Amino acid sequence: MKKAVILLSGGLDSATSMAVARSEGYELYALSFDYGQRHINELDRAKKIAETMDAQKHLIINADLTGIGGSALTSDIEVPKNSSEAAKRGSEEVIPVTYVPARNTIFLSFALGWAEVIEAEAIFIGANAVDYSGYPDCRPEFISAFEDMANLATKVSVEGKIKFRVHAPLIDLTKAGIIRKGAELGVDHALTWSCYDPVTKEGGGYVPCGGCDSCRIRAKGFEEAGLKDPLFD
Amino acid sequence: MKKAVILLSGGLDSATSMAVARSEGYELYALSFDYGQRHINELDRAKKIAETMDAQKHLIINADLTGIGGSALTSDIEVPKNSSEAAKRGSEEVIPVTYVPARNTIFLSFALGWAEVIEAEAIFIGANAVDYSGYPDCRPEFISAFEDMANLATKVSVEGKIKFRVHAPLIDLTKAGIIRKGAELGVDHALTWSCYDPVTKEGGGYVPCGGCDSCRIRAKGFEEAGLKDPLFD
Repeated sequence: MKKAVILLSGGLDSATSMAVARSEGYELYALSFDYGQRHINELDRAKKIAETMDAQKHLIINADLTGIGGSALTSDIEVPKNSSEAAKRGSEEVIPVTYVPARNTIFLSFALGWAEVIEAEAIFIGANAVDYSGYPDCRPEFISAFEDMANLATKVSVEGKIKFRVHAPLIDLTKAGIIRKGAELGVDHALTWSCYDPVTKEGGGYVPCGGCDSCRIRAKGFEEAGLKDPLFD
Repeated sequence: MKKAVILLSGGLDSATSMAVARSEGYELYALSFDYGQRHINELDRAKKIAETMDAQKHLIINADLTGIGGSALTSDIEVPKNSSEAAKRGSEEVIPVTYVPARNTIFLSFALGWAEVIEAEAIFIGANAVDYSGYPDCRPEFISAFEDMANLATKVSVEGKIKFRVHAPLIDLTKAGIIRKGAELGVDHALTWSCYDPVTKEGGGYVPCGGCDSCRIRAKGFEEAGLKDPLFD
């Protein structure tokens, strides 16, 4: 059975990317990171998603990005709320403060290392160039350059055993398109998490803030897809 | 003052690479990793080297590679001693068990993230294609592909503020050449560490095993350079 390493954050996109890999017949090796993110409850979601999608293995790597800093997601920079920033996405070249320097490069590099060890030729990433046009490492040209580098970087590729391919099956989809595709492929959207800045609930647990870029993009996506977000049931 | 992120392991090569950056007038930002390596005393050496070379900052990142496995340096695979493997290096295409899958890719990715945040255009790596010909991620074509990818991956490069360059100043030098260059540039070789499999000393501390590939390559290098290794004083 062909194997794939799936970058799984616990968000909508990575869960859908994993469902695409499953629908294409891959054995699933889910990879998540504890990188000092503020929205750490993402990881609990990732665990549940990996379980329900019958991942062969789920590896959580401790890779601390807080020392590097430079992002609202890993340092004390404030996560913008109801900002004009989200609205500006796409047409204008605005790179948001929630961008984490080199994050996808770092995550893909770990995925590459694991792929080499288990001899998986496919790496799946939920990168999306539509809603995340401001993130340079979500663009097709980045994915392609990473793939080229990967095939020069590893023992198995240099020996000709494996040619790595980085799959970014959602790269050209709108958020509504991703939500529809997830629904078709059996993603349980109630398990996914998007909020960058969750609010502690009375009695334990978290609820999405509703105001950060990620919450707003999610809400708009469900609306356009004509579906109800089960997180708000 | 122009800034450089220096990948500093605490070994001969990275210390020399750092000395090259210093001699070229860079402000030095040293970056080391606690990645679950067996030879963890490398990190103590890295700290001392960063101090004595007046690094502006020394960042140690926790990036656990043990979960990925696949290497004698991070898992239970035995480090080869006095093997024919070291001898086979160079002419034959042998990739040793001490190769860590995608390690340089992962380390360079973190370096890229930090370089973006501090706006350093240079990243220095002590990669060497002569003694480490078996490591795919020590070859010039890998370094070049990483550089191409890096310039598509980050906010500052996409915005045109910085064009990243990965410097591998030792890539074509023999170990003897690296040792001579280090001596010229004031590297204190007594602070550097090479052994993959250190032996605990009575009364505390460690001594090099003398038998692993890395010890053997070091010994041969000092011999060929006509210098005495101060580690064995």
